Amino acid sequence: MIRIMARITARAGSEGELRQVLQELPGPSRGEEGCLGYELFLNEDDPCEFVTVEQWRDQAAADAHLNSAHVVSVIGRASGLLAQTPLIHRFRQLA
Amino acid sequence: MIRIMARITARAGSEGELRQVLQELPGPSRGEEGCLGYELFLNEDDPCEFVTVEQWRDQAAADAHLNSAHVVSVIGRASGLLAQTPLIHRFRQLA
Repeated sequence: MIRIMARITARAGSEGELRQVLQELPGPSRGEEGCLGYELFLNEDDPCEFVTVEQWRDQAAADAHLNSAHVVSVIGRASGLLAQTPLIHRFRQLA
Repeated sequence: MIRIMARITARAGSEGELRQVLQELPGPSRGEEGCLGYELFLNEDDPCEFVTVEQWRDQAAADAHLNSAHVVSVIGRASGLLAQTPLIHRFRQLA
């Protein structure tokens, strides 16, 4: 099982529009093969910072997710709303 | 219910020692009043970056956690091993 967290930062002024787009991610993602969990969060101290916390069965499932139709669609619409490229990291649970 | 994520970065060379100290956090934290979840992660791309993903019943429970004996003990031993002050943020789940 692998864990992924993505930090996605809106360009100031675009946070509301980005939020609408990002909220499309969890539903279809949870229906994907190998998805064990997918949550979207907003930083209470920074309205431009969104974080996904994801669990995937294996790397193949996580890779397939990034190429899924709904993710490709979200990336296309979100790209002009971002302050920087999303920071996507893989994590290992220690405890 | 509130969600907290803390990003904790080791001084280069101290990551092994910091890891030992941080691994003491999840067990006792899960036993605290109002703790609904507590996980410790290591960034697979950066051996110095640790993240906690926490769920607390309310702000009072999260505040009490920071003053608990085991957290105070960990903070005391970790302080010399850090590259910077931990970044602790509260998140709201959107979806």
